[in-house]
Amino acid sequence: MQTDKKIIITEVALRDGSHAIRHQYTVDQVAAVAGALDQAGVPYIEVSHGDGLGGSSLQYGLSKTNEMELIEAAVSAVDQAKIAVLLIPGIGTVRDLNEAAALGAKMARVATHVTEADVAPQHIARAKELGMETVGFLMMSHMASPEKLTEQAKLMEGYGADTVYIVDSAGALLPHETAERIRRLKNELSVNIGFHAHNNLSLAMANTLAAIQEGADRIDGSIRCLGAGAGNTQTEVLVAVLDRMGIQTGVDLYKMMDIAEDLVAPILEKPQEITKGSLVLGYAGVYSSFLLHAQRAAQQFGVDSRDILIELGKQKVVGGQEDMIFDVAADLAKQSANLVTK
Amino acid sequence: MQTDKKIIITEVALRDGSHAIRHQYTVDQVAAVAGALDQAGVPYIEVSHGDGLGGSSLQYGLSKTNEMELIEAAVSAVDQAKIAVLLIPGIGTVRDLNEAAALGAKMARVATHVTEADVAPQHIARAKELGMETVGFLMMSHMASPEKLTEQAKLMEGYGADTVYIVDSAGALLPHETAERIRRLKNELSVNIGFHAHNNLSLAMANTLAAIQEGADRIDGSIRCLGAGAGNTQTEVLVAVLDRMGIQTGVDLYKMMDIAEDLVAPILEKPQEITKGSLVLGYAGVYSSFLLHAQRAAQQFGVDSRDILIELGKQKVVGGQEDMIFDVAADLAKQSANLVTK
Repeated sequence: MQTDKKIIITEVALRDGSHAIRHQYTVDQVAAVAGALDQAGVPYIEVSHGDGLGGSSLQYGLSKTNEMELIEAAVSAVDQAKIAVLLIPGIGTVRDLNEAAALGAKMARVATHVTEADVAPQHIARAKELGMETVGFLMMSHMASPEKLTEQAKLMEGYGADTVYIVDSAGALLPHETAERIRRLKNELSVNIGFHAHNNLSLAMANTLAAIQEGADRIDGSIRCLGAGAGNTQTEVLVAVLDRMGIQTGVDLYKMMDIAEDLVAPILEKPQEITKGSLVLGYAGVYSSFLLHAQRAAQQFGVDSRDILIELGKQKVVGGQEDMIFDVAADLAKQSANLVTK
Repeated sequence: MQTDKKIIITEVALRDGSHAIRHQYTVDQVAAVAGALDQAGVPYIEVSHGDGLGGSSLQYGLSKTNEMELIEAAVSAVDQAKIAVLLIPGIGTVRDLNEAAALGAKMARVATHVTEADVAPQHIARAKELGMETVGFLMMSHMASPEKLTEQAKLMEGYGADTVYIVDSAGALLPHETAERIRRLKNELSVNIGFHAHNNLSLAMANTLAAIQEGADRIDGSIRCLGAGAGNTQTEVLVAVLDRMGIQTGVDLYKMMDIAEDLVAPILEKPQEITKGSLVLGYAGVYSSFLLHAQRAAQQFGVDSRDILIELGKQKVVGGQEDMIFDVAADLAKQSANLVTK
């Protein structure tokens, strides 16, 4: 099959994948992987701490290497590819952005919780002043209704984002939910639409194809599935699938297979798979950072951590509300005690 | 969401998963896993050598434990679940079937290449005489056109199969291809229709949902993805996804998560992931047994093993035609020499 359709891939293993290796990338690893991805024709390569610029901290995990050194190494290693950086306002700052741009980063992806696009305008504006391509990156997109998501996406468009991404951070979207959301954004916005999947429910590829079916222009992938949770859409597999569907990516499949096997697999401490932890995160639709807290609360209150996470998902608890985890655990323990005494 | 739709799951980790651990299952492992799956409400559990009854051999891999002992252990360990066996005529025999039935196996899945259903009637008839439920299992289904597949499925139905399965042995089907095939079988047959996926292109879940969308009644899954190649549809993840979609399975999600993490993961020598090898098999659409042969031929003729496999897929080479692998390698070497001298 051969069509005129073309998808622009952004490789996130050197950013989202940083989570999977506890932010232990070295300059040599990043230079080798970025250089090889560039040779394979990958057009955008994201390099940052897993939680974006400035993420290296006790709270989010300390990076082994200063991310600016990693960005510099990636920029030096590529000929054609553009280096992207992720920035979550509140974690990263305009100063971080300035520094990354000075080192040669060409794309800024400004990420907010799906209902909080309004924290992004300054950073998007500054990125544009710096001459960078800009992306509005709406995280935990499953937590907003399609209407709310569309409203927030329009805000991002209004701030000047060249592309707006639906980001399924928890890997919680089902394919028909992804399709509906992409369809709305394609209908109601005029900028490019992107999609970023996680594989916690083994649906990264299914959701990605649903997004492409509805007209998504840009797709994130992580080579060898090197991303948070159960990883992202596996890039080399995506290239193979799109090739079979006649959709152009400009990326060399054989080179991607070799990079995955020879350069990336050895970096992983253990292969990416769908574990009990990643599955429950996708099923409950909650932040991965809640998992450990919920396990501690479960032990303290004698309840199942999965019940806590599912209840947190129902209540749409967001980052910063971690106190709720213990409240929910206490409530569940009380309910179960009431059941026993009745 | 809640619907009346119900899917019957067959767990194949103790058969297809046998490939992933080089057929090294012990009686204790099979008894523990089968017993736990039964407690979780899994209705059918397949136990056999990876290549079906009688598969233990130098050619297909020697089993550590006689599969009849494993079947007996599984039968003893379950209360409600039915134990299924796979039989490929030519590898397994009617005598094997008699023995498995005597030990308490209640379902016979008679597997043939997608264009060779006509080798199945004797075995299906014998299984029915033995009082077993019967399945016609059409392997490498991607290699036949939807018309040919339907014709072969009708043969299976005519032989008395209670269910006919589309089996994507190479993990090569795309979701729209799966949907078209299931739709035809649902329209043209009156027996139950099943679907068995492999995850070589990260499409096991996508294809499974496409099959269910078109009316598939039965789905195979492997817990913790324990199957040949990149594994099958991951059962505990499937249970979670179907639960989110309001589709009934009768299977307990929490128990499945625990079995996957506590009983099955420790059996695996290494976690299941999509490697270069499994990806190329899915992309080329060829038998997994071709991989090693192609690598040897590639070395001998100085060509890329992937080019050999892709050419074998184009030529629809089947098991038993392994000589073709060296012919194809020689042709590719000749072509490339011609290119150089021109």
